[in-house]
Amino acid sequence: MSAEQVVRVGVLGAGVVGSQVVRLLTEQADELAARVGARLELVGVAVRRPNRHADIPAELLTTDAAALVAREDVDVIVEVIGGIEPTKDLLLTALRRGAGVVTANKALLAEHGPELYATADAVGTDLYFEAAVAGAIPLIRPLRESLAGDRITRILGIVNGTTNYILSAMTADGMGYDEALAEATRLGYAEADPTADVDGFDAAAKAAILASIGFHTRVGAADVYREGISAVSASDVAAAARLGSVIKLLAICERTTATGPDGGPVESVSARVHPVMVPRSHPLAVVDGAYNAVYVEAEAAGRLMFYGPGAGGAPTASAVLGDLVAVARNRVAGGRGPRESAYAALPVQPMGEVLSRYHIDLDVADRAGVLAAVAGAFAEAGVSISTVRQEGRDDDASLVVVTHGAPDAALAGTVASLADLESVRQVTSVMRVMG
Amino acid sequence: MSAEQVVRVGVLGAGVVGSQVVRLLTEQADELAARVGARLELVGVAVRRPNRHADIPAELLTTDAAALVAREDVDVIVEVIGGIEPTKDLLLTALRRGAGVVTANKALLAEHGPELYATADAVGTDLYFEAAVAGAIPLIRPLRESLAGDRITRILGIVNGTTNYILSAMTADGMGYDEALAEATRLGYAEADPTADVDGFDAAAKAAILASIGFHTRVGAADVYREGISAVSASDVAAAARLGSVIKLLAICERTTATGPDGGPVESVSARVHPVMVPRSHPLAVVDGAYNAVYVEAEAAGRLMFYGPGAGGAPTASAVLGDLVAVARNRVAGGRGPRESAYAALPVQPMGEVLSRYHIDLDVADRAGVLAAVAGAFAEAGVSISTVRQEGRDDDASLVVVTHGAPDAALAGTVASLADLESVRQVTSVMRVMG
Repeated sequence: MSAEQVVRVGVLGAGVVGSQVVRLLTEQADELAARVGARLELVGVAVRRPNRHADIPAELLTTDAAALVAREDVDVIVEVIGGIEPTKDLLLTALRRGAGVVTANKALLAEHGPELYATADAVGTDLYFEAAVAGAIPLIRPLRESLAGDRITRILGIVNGTTNYILSAMTADGMGYDEALAEATRLGYAEADPTADVDGFDAAAKAAILASIGFHTRVGAADVYREGISAVSASDVAAAARLGSVIKLLAICERTTATGPDGGPVESVSARVHPVMVPRSHPLAVVDGAYNAVYVEAEAAGRLMFYGPGAGGAPTASAVLGDLVAVARNRVAGGRGPRESAYAALPVQPMGEVLSRYHIDLDVADRAGVLAAVAGAFAEAGVSISTVRQEGRDDDASLVVVTHGAPDAALAGTVASLADLESVRQVTSVMRVMG
Repeated sequence: MSAEQVVRVGVLGAGVVGSQVVRLLTEQADELAARVGARLELVGVAVRRPNRHADIPAELLTTDAAALVAREDVDVIVEVIGGIEPTKDLLLTALRRGAGVVTANKALLAEHGPELYATADAVGTDLYFEAAVAGAIPLIRPLRESLAGDRITRILGIVNGTTNYILSAMTADGMGYDEALAEATRLGYAEADPTADVDGFDAAAKAAILASIGFHTRVGAADVYREGISAVSASDVAAAARLGSVIKLLAICERTTATGPDGGPVESVSARVHPVMVPRSHPLAVVDGAYNAVYVEAEAAGRLMFYGPGAGGAPTASAVLGDLVAVARNRVAGGRGPRESAYAALPVQPMGEVLSRYHIDLDVADRAGVLAAVAGAFAEAGVSISTVRQEGRDDDASLVVVTHGAPDAALAGTVASLADLESVRQVTSVMRVMG
């Protein structure tokens, strides 16, 4: 390495993640230089309120992010401010003039990934985003590089720490949803406005990114079916426990093969986020608290799991810096990281066609004919029942039905017609079941 | 991609892994071409007995591996024959003329990695070896790329499926070592000569590779302390169970910081393979059968775990093909994969200085003064006792001692002096304890 070689880095944002990126860039400067083959020189940090960042040298701080991304001497832009606008324009500006970009912005990638990729490709620069999914866990690189010679069939992920913390607390301590959310907020695991987490928007953006990479197909946030956890009740958690399961909010990406009209195979992909009853024997069932884990099935590799801290300043900064080293190495040694791979362009299956299994808890009248009426409603919709269990008697009677796999729309329709049956007082709980 | 662009691949070996590599290269040719941006053309497969490979087109088979690696039109050599010689010379020949190399050969890398790397660097070509450690689990790429911006402090791995199968069987079914080994052999998990697995040679080679990458320091197979599992008895397994633990053969790589003579910090690394009592609450404790898992601690990222099939034809072929796609992409798009990173050049700590904790089971005379004598032996060696438990009485009396961390040599010395005590009838079991 030549003594003069330098890669100049601009950072957008100095919040929880950005401040750790700046700290590590400084503290590990010598080690990073040895690994890159050039020094990483921090030349600017764009923030909103410079007086709030006493830990960063004042001469590096700027409120003018647009000027920082446009500076011709900045080789790589690290983006950790989040949001769609003005972030998208800032990154497009940086990419257009040939800067490499490292971002942790899952929402931006899920909505505008193809535009960002196309801009990077047009000028031949790098776009890396390991930190956008599952924080510190190396996942994007394994999916788009290590498994590049394999055919991924399924990705199941616990990719949102807030909801996993809440569901873990409900499971461990029997808390209700509101109580567990309040505790998560008090401990800093949930934001003041928890919508993006508890309603599944965050996980859906990550599902879109994982499905896109895993299946070489563009899957956007709008393609992802999404249900959050706010409707999960203590009785759902108890029902899961009786089944030997726990409830997890999973991002589920699947590649399925059906028989087409001409008898040949027709492939499609699906991506969805919703609560699922996961058997305790599954490796994802034991992933508790704010941890993340992603389970990947591939034809040749078999079943893999990646586990670690899914958020937090230092872990996310670790993923950002790994990408920064890669982009900087490419600039020093020549070469490019992987581009968008969307050649497969498989159709995205609508949620109604996706095969699901349901666990349905019914409050029923304890009289002859109830089971027949309920079974009839399933049969009419063509949904096959796996197990049915009657619990209690008289006023407390309930039926617990677990179905075989059936199209989600047929199951949803069955639940609606069950609610209309005279002998069914209430549909107490409906939850999808893994497998 | 230009229609004519082709990357020519030669494969050394068509055994369990090689035959899967050939199959996947053929079956997934179109997908691989889309991912690489060029077709991967298989131009030769070197085997010992061509008549044993009816599944491979005869015109591709050759017994002349030396001629295949020397062919100027072969862009990438995939090596899955194993062994040191003649494999090393074959790969050096390929690298010297600028071919990329993908290998699964842990023993060769652990012994001659620096020479292979230097040869690749001299001509600017690629050396990839994801399949050398933990089969299909993406591990090398996460360690040398995703975590390139972090400081790895510890790597704990279950990296040998044969020994993990044997230890799992001893734990689950109470089998003795010989019985469990016989079962593993019968089921194909152990080879006819199981030495490389059960004596820890295979795991030690992998520990050397992991330590080298993780700590940016050359660590060879000879630097790795090694104990296998053949001395693990059913009573050791039972003793672990009483402690709420299971016995695993771990590859342990650690970076430690001590205070030097001038008061400043002195860093060193260590790498070792031996049986360890692992608490059931640790994620590695539940990794059973032929599965592998590697647990990584890094300063910023925190604790990560990678889990999956550690061996087998198709899983290993998946890792090989991921590397092949990377090498081929580099040849098409320009650029290089990561080179050897050994800049830190930290000293390797001798095993005697490594801090260990021991679990020691003593068959003792049940009389006053025994505990004092035993405690005295520990005190004399400067080893601090964490817990001591007396079990049984009279002829059955035993003492179970668990120590705090102490230099391994001091602990080994203490065990020797315990055996010499008049009141100690026998040292029944000695096992290192995690933590």
